[in-house]
Order: sequence, then C-alpha cells, then structure tokens
Amino acid sequence: MPIRHFPTSLAHRAVVHGETIYLAGMVADDKSLPVGGQTRQILEKLDALLRTLNSNTSRLLSATVYLIDMKDKDEMNAVWADYFKPEDLPVRATVAVAQLGPKTLIEVVAVAAGDP
Amino acid sequence: MPIRHFPTSLAHRAVVHGETIYLAGMVADDKSLPVGGQTRQILEKLDALLRTLNSNTSRLLSATVYLIDMKDKDEMNAVWADYFKPEDLPVRATVAVAQLGPKTLIEVVAVAAGDP
Amino acid sequence: MPIRHFPTSLAHRAVVHGETIYLAGMVADDKSLPVGGQTRQILEKLDALLRTLNSNTSRLLSATVYLIDMKDKDEMNAVWADYFKPEDLPVRATVAVAQLGPKTLIEVVAVAAGDP
Repeated sequence: MPIRHFPTSLAHRAVVHGETIYLAGMVADDKSLPVGGQTRQILEKLDALLRTLNSNTSRLLSATVYLIDMKDKDEMNAVWADYFKPEDLPVRATVAVAQLGPKTLIEVVAVAAGDP
Repeated sequence: MPIRHFPTSLAHRAVVHGETIYLAGMVADDKSLPVGGQTRQILEKLDALLRTLNSNTSRLLSATVYLIDMKDKDEMNAVWADYFKPEDLPVRATVAVAQLGPKTLIEVVAVAAGDP
Repeated sequence: MPIRHFPTSLAHRAVVHGETIYLAGMVADDKSLPVGGQTRQILEKLDALLRTLNSNTSRLLSATVYLIDMKDKDEMNAVWADYFKPEDLPVRATVAVAQLGPKTLIEVVAVAAGDP
C-alpha cells in the first residue's frame, strides 16, 4: 500500500496510507481568538486540508483535543457540537496538557477516512 | 470503505472504519475509586463496548493512558497486567497530563481490531 | 485480518494489524542525554524495531511527541529535521505534558506502515 505525503515540510500536514489519512497536530492561525474561535478555525483548516485529499471533516474518525485548561472545554464543546452533524462526530478524547505553543489554547490531532 | 458510528452523540463512543475501531477517551463511571479501580472499570467498559461490535479487549491494538500523576502508574500497571493475557497486550504509552475531568485519575484512548 | 504482537511483555513494543504497525511509547535508554540526544536515540530504536518487522522509520506515518518543556522543542526539531528525508516526514503533534518517566525529556508514540 503506497504512502502519500502532503506536503513535504517539517510542518507536514497529512500522510495517507491506504484509506486512512493521518493529520498533523492543527492549531489556529489567529491565536488572539478565544478557545471557541480557535476551535472553529482548526475545524475549518482541517476541512480545507481534507478537501484537497477528496475527504472532509464529515469523514473524521478520531480526534484528540489538547487544551491548556479544562475550563475551556465547554466553549470548545459548543463549537464542536455546532460544527458537526451528530451522525458525523468523530470519537474524541480531551485532555489538558502543560504547554502548547505560545497563545495556543487548543490543538487537535485527528485521523480521517480517505475514501469518499 | 464505509464508516460506522456507535452511537451518535457528543459522547460518541466508537467509530468503525474497515477493520479498525477507534474508541473515544474512556473514563471510569465511579470516580470515587482509586486509580486501580478506575483502570479496571475502564477496561471492563471498553470490553462491553467492543463486544457490541463483535470485538473485545483481547483485540485492542494500541492504548494511550493519561494519568494525573505518574505515582499512579504502578497501581494502574498492576491492574493492566492482571487484566490482559500477555499475548493480548496492546502497545501502550503512559503520560501524566495537567488535568482530566473532575476526580478522573485515568483516561484511556484506544484503537482495536474489528475483525474477529 | 490477523493481529501480530512483538514481543509479548508489558513493555510490549509493536502490534501489527494488516498493513499498520502500532508502536508503544518509546523513550531513550540513556536518560542522561539532553533532549536532542534522547530524540536521536528514540528514532534509532524505532528504526531498529521497525526493521525487525520489514519496515523502517522512512515508513512512519504519524508521531506524537510528548515533551516535558516546550523550550526543548527547537532542539528536538533540529534532530528530527536532520534525521528524516523531507519526503519521509511523518505527520507530528508536539505537546508538553506534566510528567513522563524520571529524567525522560521526550517520549514518542508512532504508527508506521508495515508493507515495504
């Protein structure tokens, strides 16, 4: 089964193996946003990236959500629930870690299905 | 390859893609238990969930164990070693994060094989 | 699809399912090394392990890098960029957690392709 890489850089964003798309940890571009805004921006970035691979966020399988503070979970959840159709929700785990990048309130690591 | 979701809710528990089962982060129902008891409850919940999908914990492939304190690792390990037959152990990583849910001492994120 | 385990122990290192290799969290053997040295040792250990399974680190798909301090990210990145050919980089997420093992500055959890 071939491995396809998109694109080739240290900030590598997606690796496709068979029908599985592995995605790099995604953070918002605008770190001045509150956690809800950062969450939405991440989901929109993931969708745009997945569309270049003939997939989209409705085909996410699994997501790990790293927060800096569990107090942010409700606001993140509200965006998450608004963004996804209930039947398309990926499985998810949410944990608060010690540090992400500067002003990064949330980072999402996901796996998606590549076969439309 | 179709994606199957079980069940449809924000607390979504399993997404099946081909022969791979992605499981949501699992925590114990009884948070008054010490870490060993929480560990066992999580493994039993995972097994019950996997059995609804014609799999079980002997078919776990990979597990990430999030603790609140690495001091809990020995107690968690003792339950883990008691629970699994040696030949069925999934690969595992154990890290201590900053926060999980209230009174949650351990959360487990796993991937299982769906084909019996 | 059969599951193959390598080897059978609590420090289980690899589980193969179809064409996917799930790897246990890997840490350096020599914890006196700085983070760059620990990173290189982990990558070399992963490569040696993967070679026993007819794979190697050029076939890594995804890696989660757990650090103790995000200040270590630049030094880890330098080793990472030196180690991989750009076209072979796995997707990656890097987060700082609260605790790893004693003197462990970095732990890497990875998934690789098993089909050469």
